Amino acid sequence: MTTTLAAKIARDYGTPALVIDMDRVERNIARVQRLCDAAGVANRPHIKTHKSPVLAQLQIAAGARGITCQKLGEAEIMAAAGLDDILISYNLIGEEKIARLGALLASTKVTVAADNPVVIDNLAPAAARAGRPLGVVVECDTGRKRAGVETPAEAIALARQIAATPGLTFAGFLLYPTEDGWPQAQRFYDEALAGVRQAGLEAAIVSTGGSPNLKHVGELKGATEHRPGTYVYNDRMQVAAGVATWDDCALHVYTTVVSRAAPDRGIIDAGSKTLTADTGGLDGFGLILDHPQARIARFAEEHGFLDLSKSNTRPEVGDVLRVVPNHVCVVVNMADEVVMVRGDDIIGTLPVAARGRLR
Amino acid sequence: MTTTLAAKIARDYGTPALVIDMDRVERNIARVQRLCDAAGVANRPHIKTHKSPVLAQLQIAAGARGITCQKLGEAEIMAAAGLDDILISYNLIGEEKIARLGALLASTKVTVAADNPVVIDNLAPAAARAGRPLGVVVECDTGRKRAGVETPAEAIALARQIAATPGLTFAGFLLYPTEDGWPQAQRFYDEALAGVRQAGLEAAIVSTGGSPNLKHVGELKGATEHRPGTYVYNDRMQVAAGVATWDDCALHVYTTVVSRAAPDRGIIDAGSKTLTADTGGLDGFGLILDHPQARIARFAEEHGFLDLSKSNTRPEVGDVLRVVPNHVCVVVNMADEVVMVRGDDIIGTLPVAARGRLR
Repeated sequence: MTTTLAAKIARDYGTPALVIDMDRVERNIARVQRLCDAAGVANRPHIKTHKSPVLAQLQIAAGARGITCQKLGEAEIMAAAGLDDILISYNLIGEEKIARLGALLASTKVTVAADNPVVIDNLAPAAARAGRPLGVVVECDTGRKRAGVETPAEAIALARQIAATPGLTFAGFLLYPTEDGWPQAQRFYDEALAGVRQAGLEAAIVSTGGSPNLKHVGELKGATEHRPGTYVYNDRMQVAAGVATWDDCALHVYTTVVSRAAPDRGIIDAGSKTLTADTGGLDGFGLILDHPQARIARFAEEHGFLDLSKSNTRPEVGDVLRVVPNHVCVVVNMADEVVMVRGDDIIGTLPVAARGRLR
Repeated sequence: MTTTLAAKIARDYGTPALVIDMDRVERNIARVQRLCDAAGVANRPHIKTHKSPVLAQLQIAAGARGITCQKLGEAEIMAAAGLDDILISYNLIGEEKIARLGALLASTKVTVAADNPVVIDNLAPAAARAGRPLGVVVECDTGRKRAGVETPAEAIALARQIAATPGLTFAGFLLYPTEDGWPQAQRFYDEALAGVRQAGLEAAIVSTGGSPNLKHVGELKGATEHRPGTYVYNDRMQVAAGVATWDDCALHVYTTVVSRAAPDRGIIDAGSKTLTADTGGLDGFGLILDHPQARIARFAEEHGFLDLSKSNTRPEVGDVLRVVPNHVCVVVNMADEVVMVRGDDIIGTLPVAARGRLR
């Protein structure tokens, strides 16, 4: 069966090709919606993984409250396709962006994040341009050392600043707990909430993030929503994190063996410009389903170098292999389109519509 | 002066933006053409770096013999724009690709590479479809353990197979010597050449590769051409390899500081979906020209995390920084367009036309 699909993909599209199984996609969407429903929090999927308004609409149809974007340009693509409750979980800054944000806000419900006073100051003109208030959530860092303020006191101060800025509305808190840091996130949030309440404010949105965190969804008392992204496709990292099985991996990279210059090595036509140099902290750059002991050891831009020394089975030149990538979000981002299948049937292609929106 | 351009880029395009200085691009093109001319070998630049027919035409106008592509899809874009002497330095395999190769060959002078009998066998229908012969060079591995046969005997056998295949013409040898492996490449080539001559064949093309190898260009006695790619823009790897200066780096990534959550760290709006996870073997993910002691330590997809602990100067939220990426080829591949400037003046945008042509 698998061979048949691989042959069809190679014949109709050639390789490397990113192929998504819509049965699996729909199953993933339904399963995570059920998880959120059961936990009593809304689902606000992050579209960074699929970058497709079509899939975002499927997520909404399954019950998601709205969507999350990381780039203003992504939000513009989604809004143009009719998505209308968008959280941009990012510090937007700069005149050019704020003008575009204002234009977007005029027609779409948009909420943005901020973790510092400069960003908050620079947001006000967006609301003025749109002629309506802009909701701003305060991003809180509870251990990852990424974006977000490090203390509840800072979060409270930013909430007050937002509320005091004409055109801006304090909308709540954005959190991304570490996997074992949910109790820490709870303490942070409780203290921050108490502080904003003293200022007469309420947190309408309390948003937690991450597909690996799906095993903890609902654990933060007070959380109103979760924003998982990767679950729509899943990947080797999600399997390693214990939140997906190989059968939940909806995207496979189909790639052809183009060289076998020595018994212990081979080359596939997916290099760093397809599978990316992002290891996701794992060994090798993907799981070859057809030869699980073969290791994608390193890359040139259009070559993937296979170490076959520990593989009992060895592919031949011309073989089409299926790879589960380590980190699917960055792999999808390399392609302008993905091929859609159901089981062994090819349906067609789906544009990665918001790809390349760097800004 | 620099501040002025950064402000203009941020105002007109926003960040992150890939910005190329055309004065530097033209200088790089002219300098490497002079190097090849002086060495007595033709220049066949690899377009994988810029993926732009406009820049390829500049390289041809400066004296390049033709161009090199790594993907058939790149060659199709280049041919459609009028480029007409194209070496595809890759094992093309599969019905779908061979049909397209035949269509391309009908209108364009194309040469392809092969390092194994299966690939050679599968090429013949392209020539039949085009109604004219397809030149095939034998790829030789002289130490990199990438693509290419490992011994002169294998190279000779493949040359004979090519010559014996209806529609195919033995066109020569493709080599990519390691930096200290030029004597080894010479021995390999000499032995392979003697063997093909015994079979009554000649090597019309003897092609060496690599921008870091520019310091050795012409050292292989018998080489007819060199195929450097990265030199058009240069990057931190080329500076580290001693073949470019910082002033030769024609592409800068303009990026804004969006967060400074703690004294020793900051976040820029260029993450792994802009600068890529490809380290190129260097420490950190790029040189920040404005704060050379700041280290781009790690990434999220849209966040670049700065370690400022060893930096005497520290950027503020809102500052626009210029980054020389480690490996410019993969960074250009993330964007649909680059912004062109000359000195402090913005000229406009240039599409990365062959980007996303995975196949």
